[in-house]
Amino acid sequence: MIVTFLGTGSGAPTTRRNVSGIGLRFLQAGKWWLFDCGEGTQHQLLRSPMKISQLDKIFITHLHGDHLYGLIGLLASRSLRNGEAAPLELYGPPGLDRYFRVVMETSPVHLQYPLQLKTVSEGIVYEDEDVIVTCRIAKHRVTSFAYAVTEKEKSGAFQVELAKQAGVPSGPLYGALKRGEQITLADGTVLEGKDFVGEPQPGRKIVFSGDTEPCVAVRELASEADLLVHEATYAQRDKELAVRSGHSTAQEAAQLAMEAGVKQLCLTHFSPRYEDEEGDFSMDDLLAEARAIHPCTVLADDFSSVPIKRERKTADT
Amino acid sequence: MIVTFLGTGSGAPTTRRNVSGIGLRFLQAGKWWLFDCGEGTQHQLLRSPMKISQLDKIFITHLHGDHLYGLIGLLASRSLRNGEAAPLELYGPPGLDRYFRVVMETSPVHLQYPLQLKTVSEGIVYEDEDVIVTCRIAKHRVTSFAYAVTEKEKSGAFQVELAKQAGVPSGPLYGALKRGEQITLADGTVLEGKDFVGEPQPGRKIVFSGDTEPCVAVRELASEADLLVHEATYAQRDKELAVRSGHSTAQEAAQLAMEAGVKQLCLTHFSPRYEDEEGDFSMDDLLAEARAIHPCTVLADDFSSVPIKRERKTADT
Repeated sequence: MIVTFLGTGSGAPTTRRNVSGIGLRFLQAGKWWLFDCGEGTQHQLLRSPMKISQLDKIFITHLHGDHLYGLIGLLASRSLRNGEAAPLELYGPPGLDRYFRVVMETSPVHLQYPLQLKTVSEGIVYEDEDVIVTCRIAKHRVTSFAYAVTEKEKSGAFQVELAKQAGVPSGPLYGALKRGEQITLADGTVLEGKDFVGEPQPGRKIVFSGDTEPCVAVRELASEADLLVHEATYAQRDKELAVRSGHSTAQEAAQLAMEAGVKQLCLTHFSPRYEDEEGDFSMDDLLAEARAIHPCTVLADDFSSVPIKRERKTADT
Repeated sequence: MIVTFLGTGSGAPTTRRNVSGIGLRFLQAGKWWLFDCGEGTQHQLLRSPMKISQLDKIFITHLHGDHLYGLIGLLASRSLRNGEAAPLELYGPPGLDRYFRVVMETSPVHLQYPLQLKTVSEGIVYEDEDVIVTCRIAKHRVTSFAYAVTEKEKSGAFQVELAKQAGVPSGPLYGALKRGEQITLADGTVLEGKDFVGEPQPGRKIVFSGDTEPCVAVRELASEADLLVHEATYAQRDKELAVRSGHSTAQEAAQLAMEAGVKQLCLTHFSPRYEDEEGDFSMDDLLAEARAIHPCTVLADDFSSVPIKRERKTADT
């Protein structure tokens, strides 16, 4: 899985950063999910490796314009460009359905694919055999959801060669070993399934904070995550602005990531005030502020990517 | 006045052309007007000479997304960037008010400037001492307005030196001459005001078709215009597509411009199908198709400008 950023600014677009939009790419499955869809997200897509036709699900954290105003245009273009495209699922907070309905009524778009819109509440949002998506309500000026995408543990591969060497005849006994059961061969030898199955592959966990002050809900949701994408609109020196607008500072995000045992932290949703390299506080300073607390921190840029590697368990664990 | 294009494509943005947005710049007044506001118009603005703070009025032709979905984001950014900015007037078709209201309710934006939204109908839309804006209903799949911006004729400048030479004492008689009245000097000399006032400056006329099939209403509105900005989504070879979608071909737009006595024609709102220079019909071919009928035709590009010069009347007219 790879996280690729389409917009990493806050409020209004600048020439350097678009407003919010984050892709989560499932390379093997040839599909990707989008978290938030600020205005111009479809424009950014044109310059990214992600194809609009392979977009499978959209998750909206909250209904502020810089996370939302690109949504209907993107849905329309997905239809216009692809004709009868694959179905799409859209998840978001209460109110998203009304927004969608009225915009569609006023400015009719004929979507040539099935679209399912689901209003989310805290808990499980989506689940299939590979992955589970859960969400919690973060702490912002409007209802804002943080989403966690957690892969399920994959059972280890069956070691056919080992079974052959142990004299197991191919057939139903293979299946029993695969399921981890104990079997007895014709000569009375007892074999344990676990000895014939490779190490299970642990699932990865990625959490998207959306817009939020530092809060317990996001800290709990982010527990032991491989990657936490957390907003850091401000530096700690502008803490007052952060409080007033319901946002986090880089220091607070790093502190929360430490407390949650997050392996890697990626900050985003930056105020444009730190972009001036001649200014007395730069983006480098913002990064240093976070790294002083959580060394494994990076800053997102538009079109930057963060791969989330699968951690292999050692034999002892 | 200068027309500067922010988006010249149709339907969905491409890397070369954004969706619709056209600026009309009043250089001396330090303000500009926007005709249509597709998604990403505020992004294009960042790369243009126009300042969001100097945006004075917005005219929406119709409620299709590629002319509308950038509106609320642009309104929000105008507030976010400037704080208490100058008032703004927004004109558009019925339904725009509901769209505006529901989006604002769902995704609240606190605009820090007065915004007046006016639903237009055929006739005079706006008038001040310098200019008059009128509109007509064009012919599209949804109600779509074409707008004409017409400057009023400016009376000629008073020729003070001439009056002095003729022995007119400064004072009330100057005023009478300025108004074109006849005066009599103390020595009985009779003077005509018209002889002391320069040539009047004729007003310029610019017409924006919006999305439309070729139609009588736009032809009438565009009568004798200095510049007609007309959509030409398709080439004549794709006439069938144009009919099906309620659009014009380049040939049709040129024909209409000729019939209306338009001095200069600028085509826009192009289908992306002609962008492939290796294809069997290019944008150059589209231009040639129009120029065969109206030689004074140009194609709009994103960020291209068309100045509208003031035509000076000769002494005889």
